[in-house]
Order: sequence, then C-alpha cells, then structure tokens
Amino acid sequence: VQDEPVTLPIHYDPEKIVPVDYFKPAAVAVIGASDDKTKMGYAAFHNLLQFTGPVYPVNNTREEIQGRKCYPSISAIPGHVDMVVLTIPAKFVPSTIEECGQKGVKMAVIITAGFKEMNEEGRALEAKVVEIARKYGVRIVGPNCLGLILPPYKLDTTYVAASPLPGDIAFISQSGAMANAVVGMSLTKGQELGFSEVVSVGNQCDLDYLDYLGYAANDPHTKSIILYVEEIKNGVAFMEMAREITKKKPIIAIKAGSSKRGQAAAASHTGSLSGAYEVYMEAFRKCGVIAVTTVPEAFQCAKIMGALKKPLYGKRAVVITNAGGFAVLSNDYAERRGIDIVDIPEHLIKEMDTFLPEFWNRNNPVDLLGDADEARFRGVLDVLTREENETLWDIAVIITFPNKVLSPEQVGQVLIDYQKKSENLVVGSFIGGDCLQPGVDLAREHDIPVFDELEFVYRTLGLMTKNIIRK
Amino acid sequence: VQDEPVTLPIHYDPEKIVPVDYFKPAAVAVIGASDDKTKMGYAAFHNLLQFTGPVYPVNNTREEIQGRKCYPSISAIPGHVDMVVLTIPAKFVPSTIEECGQKGVKMAVIITAGFKEMNEEGRALEAKVVEIARKYGVRIVGPNCLGLILPPYKLDTTYVAASPLPGDIAFISQSGAMANAVVGMSLTKGQELGFSEVVSVGNQCDLDYLDYLGYAANDPHTKSIILYVEEIKNGVAFMEMAREITKKKPIIAIKAGSSKRGQAAAASHTGSLSGAYEVYMEAFRKCGVIAVTTVPEAFQCAKIMGALKKPLYGKRAVVITNAGGFAVLSNDYAERRGIDIVDIPEHLIKEMDTFLPEFWNRNNPVDLLGDADEARFRGVLDVLTREENETLWDIAVIITFPNKVLSPEQVGQVLIDYQKKSENLVVGSFIGGDCLQPGVDLAREHDIPVFDELEFVYRTLGLMTKNIIRK
Repeated sequence: VQDEPVTLPIHYDPEKIVPVDYFKPAAVAVIGASDDKTKMGYAAFHNLLQFTGPVYPVNNTREEIQGRKCYPSISAIPGHVDMVVLTIPAKFVPSTIEECGQKGVKMAVIITAGFKEMNEEGRALEAKVVEIARKYGVRIVGPNCLGLILPPYKLDTTYVAASPLPGDIAFISQSGAMANAVVGMSLTKGQELGFSEVVSVGNQCDLDYLDYLGYAANDPHTKSIILYVEEIKNGVAFMEMAREITKKKPIIAIKAGSSKRGQAAAASHTGSLSGAYEVYMEAFRKCGVIAVTTVPEAFQCAKIMGALKKPLYGKRAVVITNAGGFAVLSNDYAERRGIDIVDIPEHLIKEMDTFLPEFWNRNNPVDLLGDADEARFRGVLDVLTREENETLWDIAVIITFPNKVLSPEQVGQVLIDYQKKSENLVVGSFIGGDCLQPGVDLAREHDIPVFDELEFVYRTLGLMTKNIIRK
Repeated sequence: VQDEPVTLPIHYDPEKIVPVDYFKPAAVAVIGASDDKTKMGYAAFHNLLQFTGPVYPVNNTREEIQGRKCYPSISAIPGHVDMVVLTIPAKFVPSTIEECGQKGVKMAVIITAGFKEMNEEGRALEAKVVEIARKYGVRIVGPNCLGLILPPYKLDTTYVAASPLPGDIAFISQSGAMANAVVGMSLTKGQELGFSEVVSVGNQCDLDYLDYLGYAANDPHTKSIILYVEEIKNGVAFMEMAREITKKKPIIAIKAGSSKRGQAAAASHTGSLSGAYEVYMEAFRKCGVIAVTTVPEAFQCAKIMGALKKPLYGKRAVVITNAGGFAVLSNDYAERRGIDIVDIPEHLIKEMDTFLPEFWNRNNPVDLLGDADEARFRGVLDVLTREENETLWDIAVIITFPNKVLSPEQVGQVLIDYQKKSENLVVGSFIGGDCLQPGVDLAREHDIPVFDELEFVYRTLGLMTKNIIRK
C-alpha cells in the first residue's frame, strides 16, 4: 500500500474546520443495526438508545431491532435524520452514502473497515465514498474507526462495551483499540474520568485531527484535550491551530512510533509512514503541546491542567509529608523528572520551628514525622500559602500513608482547604491502597489531583512543566 | 547527630545470622498493649490476636485488654514467652528488656521511637538497651520500627491497619511508613499480593538487613525478596550474602537517596549518610540484585521472577495483540526499556500465513487485527511454543483490549494454556479497565503475570533483565 505523494503545506484556516453543529444531530440512524450481540451494529445502536433525540435502526432484514421499529433503508425513515452510523460491509457504503446525501444527512460515522488501510481496492472504494459525500455535503467520521462519543450530549455512536461518563476531557485517537481501551480505563472504579468528546479518527478520509481539535477547542465542556497520534499529515496547519488552542486549553499528546521497529509497524497499521519522532517532539514543544508516552500520564496531565487556577509558570515544589521515606524518594523522583524541590527561606523555617516538634527536618520536603496530626500539616500550609509566600513555589505535594494519627479524610480536607486558599497547584498523594480511598474520594469530589503512586506524582509534574524554561 | 566512625569491612558469616527459630515464637506478649484504638499498643495487640499460640497483653493499669487477661509485667505471665513487642515509651525500654531477659525471652520487637534517630540521649539509651539484651541473649528487631509480620505463621507484631495476606514475597524495609504503605497497597482489591515476611528494620540496633535476608533466604515460603534501602552499613557482607541468595531467589531493591537533596534528607531521617547511589547500583548489579525505583516495579518484578520456570537468560520478546496501536506502542516502550522485539523467521511467518487473515502485518509484534478470535492467538502461540521454536524468544507478551470478538476470559485461558506449554515467560496485558477483570482474575489464579498498563509491561521486563548481558 503506497502513500499519497507529499503535498504543499496546508495552512490552518478556521473556515475549513467542520462547524460544531455537525456534531449536534437532532436525530440519528444506525445503518446495519442488529439484534445479534456479537455484531458492532448491536452495540452501536444499543449505545445510541441513551440519546435524547429520535434514533432509528436501519436493516432490511428486520421489522424491529432492540425494541424499536426498524427501517429497510435510510430513505424509508419518515422523519429528518442528521447523522448516520454505518456498520454495514464496505462494498455497500458508497450507495448508502448516496442515499444519505439524498436524505439530507449532514454527518456519517463510518465504523466499517476495509478501505484505504486494506489495499488498493479499498483505497479506490474510499475515494468513491469521499466523492459521493462531497457531492451532497455529507461529512464523514472514519471510515475504519470506533466512532464518536459526546457524553455531555448522550451521543455514543460507537460499539464500546459501556459508554464513558460525561466530563471535561476530549480524547482524539488514531487507534480504535486505544479509544476503546481508554473508555474502559476511564470507568475504573474509584478512578473514574469523564469525557467531553471521544473520537477514533479512523482513516480521516474527510474529517481529520483538525476538525476534532476544532470541536474540542470550541466546546464549552472541554477543559483539556488528549491526542493519541501515530501520524499527523497536515503538520503545518496542526501546529498553527494547536498554538492557538494551547493558549486557552491544554493539549496533551501521546505520540506513538518513536522506535524504528514501531515506525515500520505504524506504516503497516495505518498504511502510511510515521514521521520522525523527534520532529514531532520539537513541533509539539513549539506549539505548547505536552508530549507524554502513556495513557495514565495523559489522563493525569489533562485532569490537572484542565483544573489549574492559573497557568503553571514554574516547577518549584514544596513537599509536605508524615513519612520520612517518602521525603527521601520525593527528592529522587523530583530530581529525575526535573521538578525543583526548593529551599524554604530561613525565616519561614524559624516560623515553622515555633509549632513543629523539635526533631522535624527543617527542610523541603518537610518531614512532619510519623506522628504528625492534621494541625502540623495545616501549620506548614498556613505559612506557605500566606500571600507573600505564594511566590516562593508553584506546586505543593501533600503525601500521606496509612497511619493511626491522621485519617485519609483529614488529609483530604487539608487538600480541599488549601487548594481553595492557594492560587498555586496543590496535589495529594495517598500511598497505601484501598484503605486511603475515603481521602482520595473527598479530594476527587473537589477536583483536586490525587495520586496513589509517588513516582507518578513527579513524572506527571515533570511532563506538565517540561515546556517551561527554568528561571 | 554524628555517625559512628567507619569500621573495617565485616565479611558475611552464616553463623552470625540470627537462627530462624527466633522468628517462630510459641507465645508472644505485647508490653504496652492498649484498649485505646489510637494507640500503637492497641493495633499491635489486635493484630497479634490472629496468632495461633498464646498472646499476652502487658499493661500495669488494666485487668483486661481486648478481652484477654492483662498482666502488670512480663514476669507476671505464668507461661513461657519467646517474643515480646514493645510499644512503651523509650525511657522504660532498658528495664523492660532486663525483665524480658530474666524471663527467657528470645526476641524483642521494639516499635518505640526516641532512640538513636532522635539525639545523643536517644543514642545512649539505645546502646544501653543493646548492652542489656546482649547480656541475656535477647535479640532485637528495631527500635523505631513498624515491627515484623510473618503472614504464613499468622504472626503480626505491627500496628498496620490490616494484616497482609500470606504469600511468597519477603519485604524488608528501612522505612516504617513504606512498610505500612506497602502492606496497604498489597490489599488493593483485584491486585492483592501476599507476603512471607514483612519487616521494618528500624534502627537495626541488633538484627539488621543480613538477618532478615537470612530469614527470607532460608524460609520455604519465600520465593522472592524486596528491599527498601536507604543505607546498608555492612556493604561487603551484604554483597557476599546477596550473591549467594540471588543464585536461588531473586532480590529486588528499591534504593532511595539518588538525589543530592535526597541524600541530605536521608541523613536527617535515619541519622546516617546514604552512600553514593552509583556505588549501590554497581554493587547490586555485581551480586545479581535487581535495582528498581518504585514499589509497583518491585512488586511486579518480585512476582514474575518468583514464578519463573527457569531463569531468564535473555530479553527477546514476542508480542501478540489484536490492537494495532498497542503493537506500535510496544515497539516504542520495548526499545526504550531495552527489550528486544525480535524478528520472526521467515519460515514461521509463512506458516502463520496459512491460518492468519490476508492483511496481518507479518511482523513482531504480531498484529492479529481487531477482529481476532481466540483461534488466531492460539495459532500463533502453537507455532511459537513448538519445542524447536522456544529457543527463538524468552518472553511472550499477550495484549488485549475490550472488544466484542474476544472475551477477557478467553485471553486468560490462552495465557494459562501456553504458560503451561512453554518453558519461557508468558505475560498478559489487559488494557481497558475493570471490564477486563475476569481475564485478569483467571490469569492471576494461575500465577500468570498480568498488567493493566502497557508501558509498565516493558518497564518491568526491562528492569528484570537489565543485569543480563545481551548476546
């Protein structure tokens, strides 16, 4: 499978981004809807049943599907249809798109595979689909994709096992499996994450990264954007657009294909060569995109950056813990990840001396000792969050572990109170498994970033701040 | 607080390791047992109630504690006592150890803090305790520690919130908080881990790393050993001993204090300077100890290495997945972590061609495509685990995600069957949250390593194999 010849750079043109109302159908039909639970057409229609507008199953072999009247074709549906989801075999797609065009459909989500990614025949079929769609002004998501989910609008056109929760993260993925896995991970009990948009871009025969980015940028629900990228074709336009967006909303990118072997595998997977990894890294840095390598990193960065009170201008951390061992490890991890654990000025150390026990370590990380109660944490944080001291640091890391003196709920409340008081970033680290969950839950209810693993705290902070030039 | 002067190297002498029977008391007393749930003496006695032999609370202000007859002193206990746990204030410890010596106690677990780690006075107190203990042959765990847990013997002398499960990992920690956190983490639902020994070494005034290592090395329950190390004093003896042990059981070490700032913090925490990190790394490598930086890495390495059918002699991986994106990322992560994703010989590719769909990628990672059923996985694994092909690779990584064609249970069964068939290491990666848990559970029941995050697969494998010299 050969790739298209290299074309001239396309510049970012907001006019060319698909208008947001294409994503907001009044009525949706699933062409290829099914009652057979093993079929994509089953799940795609099932997931659409939560939609608030009319949803129509289309299948010429059934009278009824999943309790709804079934139509033999899109044209047989009496009402208007804005959006269709296609799960029918590839060879039927061109004629169906033609019919959709005649029906006045604005957007077709083509889940079906067997196009450009397969062979020359598939490539020709895809070109034909695009040609027909252009004729009628039908816009296309896919083909060869998981589909599109807009949880705030209860719109799920995909065949995921369970729809994701509504939230403020947009996830745009070049891999359907990755989107599927991410939706599954986002439903992990006690660590739930919500989305404003989940889309698997598929072959991008029409709508591409820029369109989905455009939706996320303009969508009031979206606070941060995650991309899973194997290859971006219109790199110049992407950079121009990303530079604009990152002024307002963080973009975090998982870029696959850093290895030589990986670049070859990506070529086989998407039918096009991945660009050099370093070129992407440099491009991302230039337009303010945070590059990460794993899904949990992306989630955590997106959550934290989406909830920042003000942009992070520095990477100076103060660390407060009741565990000496975690103070030691904090230094290790922070140094490795480029987070500066800064010295606390002598006059503040002296002030802390007045209320901390004799044998505290007089240093940052502040080791409040294993018998530390809530008051010690509050005392130190009162000093550090006093207005004139807020400029001394950018990030406060509060670490606790299971112990008899301080309940996880108390630490949760400390996080809530000082996150409210401070303009800086306050994060919590609850190291010790399920028994600390009440504190985690409390903090999460107030959108305070929490971690259950210490290295991950500094890894995430390091990734979030790596584009910041040290002062 | 000044450290002792440097002494001559002490060589490893098996005769000097505390005999195993010191860890196997017939009867235990808690001196400082309490009915007040906020006290360490409450939890320490509470956790001992599960012990199969007699347990006695000692407290001169109570008649009864937690439903058991309470004794005013150790000497007042009518029966024999082998082991005592001390939660009384530091100043009472010397006289109590004297009394324990007279009673014939063999081992005292001194949880109490306020000794060497505090100040010169504490150091003198500790020296006095050691002197008295030596006089009577009482051996000491601690002081200033969480205590000792031997789950297979239902012996828990610590004040952890919930006792860990019995299992085959020994965890020896220089931080009480770390031991406490690790026990908590080991009880995380769906990811439970069991221990043969958990000990927080405290000030090591008598028993030290070598003694606890000796226990783990000789203990039939222990399959692998994890150390959390801030500083090892008798480094030569440690290396000599570790070199012997790692021939039979893996030792994994989390070494804290790699940063300059961390080394200073460790000095404040334990009252002694951490050695240069690089010296430790080189020493670990020389004696076959696996150095890691985080607790999850340590756990995963310990679990996998403890269950190996044969030692890992190489780092050649075959990767089989139904997700193209995870094939790409596998290459990235593997390359970054030093795992070799090897080429599959042409004749085997041709053989796989006979049963795989036309558009499979003919490469390693083997991308079986999103519609892959169990048969495709089994077909590829049948080829790779055929006796003459087992020498082509060391590790098989099977990756799945939530999809309609292949249930997590099916992947779990594939893992079970081919782990049974192969002498090589087989690991599973279930990427997609709770909905894959049935497959995870199935694999875990058969001691097959499973991961819920892909980068962690290769990070762990990289750590496990980094001491292996590439061929």
